[in-house]
Amino acid sequence: MAVYTHVTAEEIATFMTTYDAGEVISFKGIAEGVENSNYLVQTARASYILTLYEKRVNPDDLPFFLGLMDHLVHKGCTTAAPIRDRDGAILKNLCGRPAALISFLPGLSITRPKPQHCDQLGQEMARMHAAAADFDLERANALSLEGWQKLVNLCAARADEVEDGLHDLIIDEMAFLQAHWPDNLPVGIIHADLFPDNVFFTGGKLSGLIDYYFACNDILTYDVAICLNAWCFEPDGAFNITKARRLLRGYGRVRPLSAAETGALSILCRGAALRFLLSRLYDWLNRVEGALVSVKDPQEYIDKLKFHRTVKNPSEYGLDI
Amino acid sequence: MAVYTHVTAEEIATFMTTYDAGEVISFKGIAEGVENSNYLVQTARASYILTLYEKRVNPDDLPFFLGLMDHLVHKGCTTAAPIRDRDGAILKNLCGRPAALISFLPGLSITRPKPQHCDQLGQEMARMHAAAADFDLERANALSLEGWQKLVNLCAARADEVEDGLHDLIIDEMAFLQAHWPDNLPVGIIHADLFPDNVFFTGGKLSGLIDYYFACNDILTYDVAICLNAWCFEPDGAFNITKARRLLRGYGRVRPLSAAETGALSILCRGAALRFLLSRLYDWLNRVEGALVSVKDPQEYIDKLKFHRTVKNPSEYGLDI
Repeated sequence: MAVYTHVTAEEIATFMTTYDAGEVISFKGIAEGVENSNYLVQTARASYILTLYEKRVNPDDLPFFLGLMDHLVHKGCTTAAPIRDRDGAILKNLCGRPAALISFLPGLSITRPKPQHCDQLGQEMARMHAAAADFDLERANALSLEGWQKLVNLCAARADEVEDGLHDLIIDEMAFLQAHWPDNLPVGIIHADLFPDNVFFTGGKLSGLIDYYFACNDILTYDVAICLNAWCFEPDGAFNITKARRLLRGYGRVRPLSAAETGALSILCRGAALRFLLSRLYDWLNRVEGALVSVKDPQEYIDKLKFHRTVKNPSEYGLDI
Repeated sequence: MAVYTHVTAEEIATFMTTYDAGEVISFKGIAEGVENSNYLVQTARASYILTLYEKRVNPDDLPFFLGLMDHLVHKGCTTAAPIRDRDGAILKNLCGRPAALISFLPGLSITRPKPQHCDQLGQEMARMHAAAADFDLERANALSLEGWQKLVNLCAARADEVEDGLHDLIIDEMAFLQAHWPDNLPVGIIHADLFPDNVFFTGGKLSGLIDYYFACNDILTYDVAICLNAWCFEPDGAFNITKARRLLRGYGRVRPLSAAETGALSILCRGAALRFLLSRLYDWLNRVEGALVSVKDPQEYIDKLKFHRTVKNPSEYGLDI
């Protein structure tokens, strides 16, 4: 939530002349995105987001991310899309950083999703999965089994600093997931970070998905599991089965889930919970006092993981089995 | 350069219903303003800046600041103005903070002003001084002689940590200003912080002044002196007499400077240099590693003060005397 690279008015004006986008009339750094610097650029014609990719983004991944956004827009998805310059390029350089001009997507991120929001999210996610099916680049998920194991190795020894018994929970869960993680489910491109702040609504209607910078190839239903965790728990930790049912039904109306997929929901939710538990635990154990980026408490995902470990039947997620 | 108070989409939507401004379609925290939290709010009708006043702003000063902006707009100045809600109020409360919705002013802040920018700045500043003449609230300048003396008392002992001899320079300069600060010059409302980042241009034309949160009653030509310091030195420290001449001529075309005012330019510039030297020195000596707010190096204003101490004649500022 910061601007790391400072771009001057003179630099943005020169940069924008490489696009057919009109003269810049306003230019503001925005407090959005943890990893990159973002500016809102307004011209006489339209608004844009200018993103400068900072050190935590691998430049080799940018053709995948930007190409995917471009592909999705051309398939009719409502998402932000990179703008081509006069030479057709989407990946550019500004102030020594890889940079891209992205279309501006109206909408607000909601903090307390309601069931109807979950329904729309499910539908749009399924549309996105279908639209990405013929995208021709691939990117492995760095935060799947192998990546989780790396984080376990880095964090487990100090895990009990957060909660007594967390070390044993993590080791046990990791062993379970290594032994039982499904390898027979449909795969494709997933967003992998569809938290409420990456989904825009206007007037109660979903207006688009943003921030594809964790997108990768993985089990499609794993994306659904990430959303069940991010959208269907209440602030007090309670699982809201009504929201889960609406999310799953919304998804299923566009892309029906197979019996194998619904049967795997619990383990996928466990994996999704462990993934965010581990990354938050790592950031928490390595936090710097007074740093620009606020660190999220891992506790929320410890509790979610514990919930999913109690689930015996997919019907507990609101599915009609 | 940060958002200190987090406002949710639900909170801004509710807040905006108290205005006749249309439905919110976008809402982004912006990295602008060192002291307050700022959001860019877009509705179907227009763009606005939502400002939440943080701890360093005295709430008792807000009627002065907001009333002044309102007054200036009604007098035809191009500046951002507070929006009245359905009940006519401009000072509101949001998330436990004083808050105001401000009109959105298009334009970009330039980093390297050219002489023609200085000309326009001079004219607009003079128009602002004239337009504020009949504003009926007053606010003392907390950063004039008395305030400088307080900062001297707090900083002088450690000043040589920045530069050898700075302690003696500050003590000597403060004594000189206490003895010779003019008390016979026209006073009125000044902006007191007209740095390039508070002046917007579109297509090379000045589109408005922003950030009146240091505005106060003081010597009008002291505002000009602040601008000579902020706009007319090159990055290498050289004083650019061409820019100074254009700034002073631009100002004088709208509000001619008297012989007493031009004669006092050097001492006013010395005071203006000491004021920013001292506040930057204080922040520098009390900086917190890793803090959100970047601290400006006091060196720039040490050098500017030294320059003005060599000036023997107002013609050295480009005036035709």
